[in-house]
Amino acid sequence: MINKEHLVDDLNAVRQKSPLVHNITNYVAMNFSANALLAIGASPVMAHAVEEMEEMTAIADALVINIGTLDSQWIDGMLKAGIAMRKRGGVIVLDPVGAGATTFRTQTAWRIIETCHPDVIRGNASEIGALTNSNVRSRGVDSTETSNGALESARLLARLSNSVVTITGPTDYITDGERVETVSNGSPMMTRITAMGCTASSMVGVFASVNKNIFEAVVHAMAVMGVAGELAAGKSVGPGSMPANFIDELYLLTPDILLKTLRQ
Amino acid sequence: MINKEHLVDDLNAVRQKSPLVHNITNYVAMNFSANALLAIGASPVMAHAVEEMEEMTAIADALVINIGTLDSQWIDGMLKAGIAMRKRGGVIVLDPVGAGATTFRTQTAWRIIETCHPDVIRGNASEIGALTNSNVRSRGVDSTETSNGALESARLLARLSNSVVTITGPTDYITDGERVETVSNGSPMMTRITAMGCTASSMVGVFASVNKNIFEAVVHAMAVMGVAGELAAGKSVGPGSMPANFIDELYLLTPDILLKTLRQ
Amino acid sequence: MINKEHLVDDLNAVRQKSPLVHNITNYVAMNFSANALLAIGASPVMAHAVEEMEEMTAIADALVINIGTLDSQWIDGMLKAGIAMRKRGGVIVLDPVGAGATTFRTQTAWRIIETCHPDVIRGNASEIGALTNSNVRSRGVDSTETSNGALESARLLARLSNSVVTITGPTDYITDGERVETVSNGSPMMTRITAMGCTASSMVGVFASVNKNIFEAVVHAMAVMGVAGELAAGKSVGPGSMPANFIDELYLLTPDILLKTLRQ
Repeated sequence: MINKEHLVDDLNAVRQKSPLVHNITNYVAMNFSANALLAIGASPVMAHAVEEMEEMTAIADALVINIGTLDSQWIDGMLKAGIAMRKRGGVIVLDPVGAGATTFRTQTAWRIIETCHPDVIRGNASEIGALTNSNVRSRGVDSTETSNGALESARLLARLSNSVVTITGPTDYITDGERVETVSNGSPMMTRITAMGCTASSMVGVFASVNKNIFEAVVHAMAVMGVAGELAAGKSVGPGSMPANFIDELYLLTPDILLKTLRQ
Repeated sequence: MINKEHLVDDLNAVRQKSPLVHNITNYVAMNFSANALLAIGASPVMAHAVEEMEEMTAIADALVINIGTLDSQWIDGMLKAGIAMRKRGGVIVLDPVGAGATTFRTQTAWRIIETCHPDVIRGNASEIGALTNSNVRSRGVDSTETSNGALESARLLARLSNSVVTITGPTDYITDGERVETVSNGSPMMTRITAMGCTASSMVGVFASVNKNIFEAVVHAMAVMGVAGELAAGKSVGPGSMPANFIDELYLLTPDILLKTLRQ
Repeated sequence: MINKEHLVDDLNAVRQKSPLVHNITNYVAMNFSANALLAIGASPVMAHAVEEMEEMTAIADALVINIGTLDSQWIDGMLKAGIAMRKRGGVIVLDPVGAGATTFRTQTAWRIIETCHPDVIRGNASEIGALTNSNVRSRGVDSTETSNGALESARLLARLSNSVVTITGPTDYITDGERVETVSNGSPMMTRITAMGCTASSMVGVFASVNKNIFEAVVHAMAVMGVAGELAAGKSVGPGSMPANFIDELYLLTPDILLKTLRQ
């Protein structure tokens, strides 16, 4: 069960504190994720150069590492930022986009896990499955697994990595290896636009910046994504109008709307 | 003449098979092209790292190489992916963005043609003209030639490269060096937004994944782009509202709407 | 005071001449800035490879260098393009995104200033402040300074760099170190979407391509941005609908609308 008081507190805290979220993310998602973070009230920065990772991380509340358009030349920056953030005690989120599609992605995701010890790992069912089971393959960046079926992988990954792991899908699962929470908001239309999952990972960075209880913060981020996604889908003719509507809904989201739309 | 039955068959096949299209494309187009491919029913993946090109191409139905924001460090990945896809017998589409604007682009386009033997080359009139005539210059990424005037260049390029060549413009021309087909749908508004041409190239990858007759598949991709563009332009106040409307129209496109809007 | 006749002349000249603006800009802004430039009537090209900088700059009317997602591997291209454009006598605009957030950005901005001698430098109050006062820090890419307070920094930077300097904010300030002009159009909604500042810098490139009086051209670019932003905000439910509306307003902008909306 989601604690509704805590959920509202976190939403209000995001608007009040405007956490600075440092994203090392993929080219496809950068613009959409930045606008989503601005809309919810956070302050996004996109930066990847190894020369500035320590200084950028030093002013950020959270670091989000996303391997969606991975390149060997970005890996050093990702690791350097992660190590600096871990030392400072700030929040680190990993989005292992396409893990299981290629060895390069699966191995890089594990290298980041082992080097940076992310607080949260968010992916679809295939990506999370592939990180603990080499028989799971991703179809490009799309999932071939059901999120339900991957829950056991998520528990295992959470224990192996000492992270909170979240699988997004028709139902979102959040687990720390023991506890499991679910979020059932959302819409199939969310899977028809690119960068929605990447934006969910960045949103985790936002909420984990204002709530020391990381597990709860992840649940709150998923609730906000699902509610805004569901409301936006209801106003969208198709996936073309969906991105703008989604960002408007994040911006217009009040505690009332959030609680009224939340399925529990 | 477009075979309407085949056109509808291909549209249905795209929705049914959801071909995985591997795009090595430019930063400007990535988000829009990915959303357009999702909207028509395909599954896009954007990846460029040389380390994963063979594995990514191995799971893809088509490879689209676009040199819009070319960088020497991406060329190795383009060539490796192209060689792997050629060996597998999958479809390769080349978009020589800005060929004729700089020597680097013209030469790289030819290097990709000679190394990867693309099945299809799609560009505007200047880009196609520049690949066979060093006197044709592109104005940045814009065309200075009429597509009509470049038809002879397209025929020549098709014969030299053994590819299907398509020039998009007010009328789209598709040729294999002998046959010429035209598509007359579309709207001037399509030239007022960026990445529309790049998306046309990715759409060729989609349709060539479901139809072994490459010439016909290119005609079908151009018909779908033109019809969706024309319908979207009719609903757009300006180029700001055009991208969302275009993607909605791709998503909402039915065989009926397609055939009713097709000009022949 | 803005000379209204000159403002209208420049808007008409942009539509008539369609200046080619070469942007070396960040991944977040590329798509939005390209569409904004197309909407106002200009022709954008995004290119960064060192191999083609001289040829690309040779056909461009203006060069815009933006360090928003800076990478050491892009710096050579920026410098080479800037040196080539300076030699040709074309317009150069620098957008020092995130100067003051990291040493890497502040130093790179100065390196570009000293090597390329930009005609115009555009930033927010923190960025401009940080270039002349090492005590000013940027919060990621957001401003911590008021634009009013940074006016003295802008004057100083203008004198040190021999550039026209413009600080955008609730009021935009434009100074050559002596004269100061202000533009009061705009909307707070412009700060709730990413890449609006980057697009303002690219718009300076557009207007400075058609007016040899650089100071006046910058004022005109800021007036057009502010007017379109204000009109777009009036039609936007939130920041999601803002980008499309903004680009539509640029496209629909007539001399009448521009003069009627201009606050003076």
